[in-house]
Amino acid sequence: MTEPSRPARGFPRSEFEARAARAQALMTEAGLDGLLVTIKANVRYFSGFDSQFWESPTRPWFLVVPREGDPTAVVPELGVAGMAATWVDDIRSWPAPRPDDDGVSLLAEALAQLRRRFGRVGAELGRESIVRMPLVDFERVRDSLPGIELADGTPVIRALRCVKSEGEIERLRHVCALASDAFEALTGSLALGDTERDACRKLRVDILERGADNVPFMPGVSGPGGYDNIVMGPTDRVMEAGDVLIIDTGATYDGYYCDFDRNYAFGEVSDEARRAYEVAWKATQAGIAAARPGATTTEVWRAQAEVLEAGGSIGNDVGRLGHGLGLQLTEPPSNMPGDETMLVPNMVITIEPGMTYAPGKMIVHEEDIVVRDDGAELLTRRAPREMPIVR
Amino acid sequence: MTEPSRPARGFPRSEFEARAARAQALMTEAGLDGLLVTIKANVRYFSGFDSQFWESPTRPWFLVVPREGDPTAVVPELGVAGMAATWVDDIRSWPAPRPDDDGVSLLAEALAQLRRRFGRVGAELGRESIVRMPLVDFERVRDSLPGIELADGTPVIRALRCVKSEGEIERLRHVCALASDAFEALTGSLALGDTERDACRKLRVDILERGADNVPFMPGVSGPGGYDNIVMGPTDRVMEAGDVLIIDTGATYDGYYCDFDRNYAFGEVSDEARRAYEVAWKATQAGIAAARPGATTTEVWRAQAEVLEAGGSIGNDVGRLGHGLGLQLTEPPSNMPGDETMLVPNMVITIEPGMTYAPGKMIVHEEDIVVRDDGAELLTRRAPREMPIVR
Repeated sequence: MTEPSRPARGFPRSEFEARAARAQALMTEAGLDGLLVTIKANVRYFSGFDSQFWESPTRPWFLVVPREGDPTAVVPELGVAGMAATWVDDIRSWPAPRPDDDGVSLLAEALAQLRRRFGRVGAELGRESIVRMPLVDFERVRDSLPGIELADGTPVIRALRCVKSEGEIERLRHVCALASDAFEALTGSLALGDTERDACRKLRVDILERGADNVPFMPGVSGPGGYDNIVMGPTDRVMEAGDVLIIDTGATYDGYYCDFDRNYAFGEVSDEARRAYEVAWKATQAGIAAARPGATTTEVWRAQAEVLEAGGSIGNDVGRLGHGLGLQLTEPPSNMPGDETMLVPNMVITIEPGMTYAPGKMIVHEEDIVVRDDGAELLTRRAPREMPIVR
Repeated sequence: MTEPSRPARGFPRSEFEARAARAQALMTEAGLDGLLVTIKANVRYFSGFDSQFWESPTRPWFLVVPREGDPTAVVPELGVAGMAATWVDDIRSWPAPRPDDDGVSLLAEALAQLRRRFGRVGAELGRESIVRMPLVDFERVRDSLPGIELADGTPVIRALRCVKSEGEIERLRHVCALASDAFEALTGSLALGDTERDACRKLRVDILERGADNVPFMPGVSGPGGYDNIVMGPTDRVMEAGDVLIIDTGATYDGYYCDFDRNYAFGEVSDEARRAYEVAWKATQAGIAAARPGATTTEVWRAQAEVLEAGGSIGNDVGRLGHGLGLQLTEPPSNMPGDETMLVPNMVITIEPGMTYAPGKMIVHEEDIVVRDDGAELLTRRAPREMPIVR
């Protein structure tokens, strides 16, 4: 299997300098002297640090991005070799794990050294965010900084990350292409009698062999004519005639995720399921068409919701019809009532309409797009016009 | 490829009842009216809820384990179908995402309904833990509960989870066996000229095809005669004669992780590298022999450290020589000075000695064991006595 020409991994120093400069302008607007980030995606975004070691919850990792000057990394000793390979020069470390002071005093010192204008530092306190360190340690850091408030830096981080650079888009396009190829090939390798788990394993292995770095996310759910959720599975359920299987996929390349799904019918497809697929396909078209600069995420939701409702949807418990993606499987904004984020060029979002057409029978579609000056550019290869049938 | 006879997935209700009963006894000792857990491993431990949807950071998930009675789940609507398949009967949900109240009022209500004796609820505030919800929402919950303190529940959770049931050990043994088979087969499929990334992809695909659910963790690092870290990579570095490659592996089966590594020499192996491998192998033996009921993690560390020092180690920046594992790649305790956790039967830990024998040249070994009445039982198949050579 030949891997399509792939983007280089890692970004040049200029990319990180540009990210820091944008961050610094937003910090000045928001009245922040710096940002403190602790999660994998945010540390990678600002530093380029790429490690699988985040899988271990034992040790915290910190990056401080000042409003003026270059970032400071405060990381466990075993991460120094990796961090030294990034553009970050100021690296401070301690022999972790060290239960009585796991980076706390080093981090407090780095924050206290920030040039002070506003007396506030932005941390990952808000929506869709977590602080990845023991809360007792976070409170120790906070209490050791008289005159510095740890405020919510989430709006700044969100504003930065939701608009992608061309380099980021290139990686997203690549991983979407790998997964699109694998989804298309899957139709030929599925068979009646496969379990949900068999189907997911075939797809996961194929995506890896096509060159993705990993496949952290691959639920697979099936049922007669549709499924009753999209977040569980795969299980050992055996596919029989009349079943519909959905597989959702978050594969990564150089840190960037695709997030889209495909549906497969087994043996035969009922008229109702065929019709629901058609409605979801058209709702996706409507969402793609609505995703233009100046439109809001609520308008992108409404364009899809109108098609779903007209098509007979009796509900959808997902709560939104698409979302941002990038260094995480799901990122802000959300296509939903009340979100009202205005789309601008280079935002990357999913268009994800879903409908329940009968109790316990749902059909969901999803594509990934980037907003361009003249409208949406597809990153995924569009789902087939009709549901593929496995025979 | 035939998958070895595999344990059933999921646990009977009696397993969760036993976990809850142990938790409740520890809560009484610790003066807690309940536990609030928010991370995937803890929610799964107490409920059996198994979903890949944790990959999306958008929505929080909550489980409240009371000191008396059965657990309450407070979960997004799209998770109700999955939670309803567990032993948890009391499931409360909201249409997430809902930015102004993302489960906050439902969670506060569930906590307020706990039968009150101590006025304290244990949350994931301490070592190696995080609270997986926006901190601003955590503070809203805390502030809405007059008379209830959100205290550190980490010691209770740690005490529960570090001693495994036979069912948990069966799953750990299974995933260790799958990865052991794949590591052994890898010697024959590696070749001079492979990149680190090629090597990791071969191993990852093989582990999946042997029946693991996923492989979330697989760093691969190489260098002439050794490597300078164990947390970065794989990269596109091409393996040449004299190189040593280490691959570390966290694969999962039914939620349970293996965590161990293997070393491969390419073309030839220097006397110094061969000797360091021998020292690390013997240090592993010493750690395994020391891991008996009544010994402490510090003694298990010392047994390894003495062999490494006598063997000429000039350091190791990992900070410890092994750790717990189970539903997470790394769990408490740590084999290190000062940890002093006393081993008891059914604790599962890794024995992980590593030595730097020359600047930038490290050799690390790792095995997974379960502590039994009469000493350590290996879950992994022991690393080869001599470093395998790829020709």
